[in-house]
Amino acid sequence: MLIVKKFGGTSVADKEKIFNVANRCAEDYKAGHDVIVVLSAMGKQTDYLLDLAREINPKAPKRELDMLLTTGEQTSVALMAMALHALGVPAISLNAFQVDMRTNSTYGNAKIKRIDTDRINRELEMRKVVIITGFQGVNRYEDYTTLGRGGSDTTAVAIASALHADKCEIYTDVDGVYTADPRIVADASKMSEITYDEMLELASLGAGVLHNRSVEMAKKYGVPLVVRSSLNNSEGTVVKEEVKMEKLAVRGVVSDKNTARISVIGLKDIPGVAFKLFNHLARYDINVDIILQSIGRDGTKDISFTVSKDNVDEAIEIIERHRTGSLQYQKIDVEKSVAKVSIVGAGMNTHAGVAAKMFEALYDVGVNIKMISTSEIRVTVLIDDEYVEKAVKAVHDKFALSEHH
Amino acid sequence: MLIVKKFGGTSVADKEKIFNVANRCAEDYKAGHDVIVVLSAMGKQTDYLLDLAREINPKAPKRELDMLLTTGEQTSVALMAMALHALGVPAISLNAFQVDMRTNSTYGNAKIKRIDTDRINRELEMRKVVIITGFQGVNRYEDYTTLGRGGSDTTAVAIASALHADKCEIYTDVDGVYTADPRIVADASKMSEITYDEMLELASLGAGVLHNRSVEMAKKYGVPLVVRSSLNNSEGTVVKEEVKMEKLAVRGVVSDKNTARISVIGLKDIPGVAFKLFNHLARYDINVDIILQSIGRDGTKDISFTVSKDNVDEAIEIIERHRTGSLQYQKIDVEKSVAKVSIVGAGMNTHAGVAAKMFEALYDVGVNIKMISTSEIRVTVLIDDEYVEKAVKAVHDKFALSEHH
Repeated sequence: MLIVKKFGGTSVADKEKIFNVANRCAEDYKAGHDVIVVLSAMGKQTDYLLDLAREINPKAPKRELDMLLTTGEQTSVALMAMALHALGVPAISLNAFQVDMRTNSTYGNAKIKRIDTDRINRELEMRKVVIITGFQGVNRYEDYTTLGRGGSDTTAVAIASALHADKCEIYTDVDGVYTADPRIVADASKMSEITYDEMLELASLGAGVLHNRSVEMAKKYGVPLVVRSSLNNSEGTVVKEEVKMEKLAVRGVVSDKNTARISVIGLKDIPGVAFKLFNHLARYDINVDIILQSIGRDGTKDISFTVSKDNVDEAIEIIERHRTGSLQYQKIDVEKSVAKVSIVGAGMNTHAGVAAKMFEALYDVGVNIKMISTSEIRVTVLIDDEYVEKAVKAVHDKFALSEHH
Repeated sequence: MLIVKKFGGTSVADKEKIFNVANRCAEDYKAGHDVIVVLSAMGKQTDYLLDLAREINPKAPKRELDMLLTTGEQTSVALMAMALHALGVPAISLNAFQVDMRTNSTYGNAKIKRIDTDRINRELEMRKVVIITGFQGVNRYEDYTTLGRGGSDTTAVAIASALHADKCEIYTDVDGVYTADPRIVADASKMSEITYDEMLELASLGAGVLHNRSVEMAKKYGVPLVVRSSLNNSEGTVVKEEVKMEKLAVRGVVSDKNTARISVIGLKDIPGVAFKLFNHLARYDINVDIILQSIGRDGTKDISFTVSKDNVDEAIEIIERHRTGSLQYQKIDVEKSVAKVSIVGAGMNTHAGVAAKMFEALYDVGVNIKMISTSEIRVTVLIDDEYVEKAVKAVHDKFALSEHH
């Protein structure tokens, strides 16, 4: 079996942790498997390098930042190879040049285009554990690029896809994907399986286990993902195309406090005004989530939407800049103490009354709903952030999620 | 003019020093020159990485050590590029993969074979300062190698040679090459010029300014070297094929305390015994310096030679191992408190009486000579190490070296 194993920075932060990872890899190797390991930079190394760069030049060219940052993963893969040798396991470390990990040219946020599998296959045939730098690539100018947030997960999936690996294990500090955050819901249960689409909804809603880009790529190429803990041997959660149909429409409930609501009140009701509003925001890379439009007074309309808390101020500034231009409105109203609570489940669209059941759960505990948004496999509500824990528990109970996994 | 400038680790140890180097490069660039900068890893970075490796695996494979160490120079070139950008000078950093710095496959002590000048020339044509990682190369397996001690000097000379640079400036913490160590001889004077051969003798005798490999390569390809200080704007010393003939036969005097004498007494006088003795030592990479053979008692002979202090114990062990085998001798005598004092000068071989004049200087101050060794451009004596300072001063005075440079 060919297994790709990805470990993040905290899993290789010191000698003890490096050997913990090396031992896990050695086990699979000794069981006869072919093992590829993808690593991030050690612990806080990337932050340290960014601080160094900022000290020299706060506006450092992104090309040089990537040149600097890629030393981080190269350090961890070399040390991991040494650790495996210390355990008597043949191993070799490879960087982006050596596996010809080609990306486009967007420094700091590159997309993987292709991988040359020759070198990796040759090393595997010599029965070596192959340890590859995550997060980094090489562009057409023969320059280093980095993949941006969640980059090492994406590297692992891309390698698993290119080599047709039997599975791609993503190691994190949690056991797998839960029906709710166990810090909020004590009897949240771990799911043994989940679909790519469910995982995508959960990831973007703040479950924080896997980065969306890696799940999207896994879905596109059908790479079986496993989310496992680097701290124990628990089975983890398998992410794949289809899971055994369960009676359960709803798989999990998640919350996200990093959200704020902005309402633009009294917009002049002319065609294209909503387009203009969100286009202005998109040009500054501000992601808008739930959108709600209602009719205002005197032939105007109100548009409300949510953004992440760190984008609120910039979003307001952008809107105000256009008040007397393309956007004519009366006032802006902002609410920062809000949070999203969502239920997710691939079976949801064939089960009637799921949304109603969620609203009932919230009503039962006296939580007021401010906005609602739905997709085929998700229902999200916006509520006061002080009620998040209460709301998540109530919804989790209502759907009896702790009993069925 | 195309100038290659090489700076060592202490010259890029912190932000202030990095900007000091960046400013020097910016000056040459703004004067219209093409500038290539070769850098070592920052300060103690290489030692830090070696400690990390030792902690993980004291017997780490050299291939992985090189993979680890090469991150050091990549960090310094990226930061230097950022510093130049901060000064408004276009710059780009390149590693061994990017300049295709090909070496043989001896990890940890590789030799440069060829460099692809395309990328470098392209960046120079775009009027960028090109900053290249010293000390590192890539072998035929597409793996990183490192060049061993003095490696960054060698990188700089190799690049200067491949691109036919007008000069290759090696920046150190001294102003240039002196007639004697200024810490010993207060009125030692700086030489404006010196031949490659003289520099080679001075380097191997402990002047410690340039590594021999880089001088040998500069001589082979006729690269004009300049030894300069990174701390001031003094002119430095030019190292080249021929210097204006001076009246002076002797150019400088150097001493080296890192030496010890071993005498093998009462060796059986059979053919090949000297060959066997030094062959045993050579197999363990022990460099032998001055050799002296004399006739002993009863048809035996005595062989004395010097080795560096760190090699003494190993050398004795090797010799003793063969006492009853290929080497039959009576005893070994060792003297560790010795030092070498040498005079060097390309004009020496055409000037009679130079050696005698040196011996006279030592006799004048009552220093006893234990062994003598000469080459065409060098006379070396072995003396008690407590007299080194006195001896160097006396010889420097005798040849009036402070007056002529």
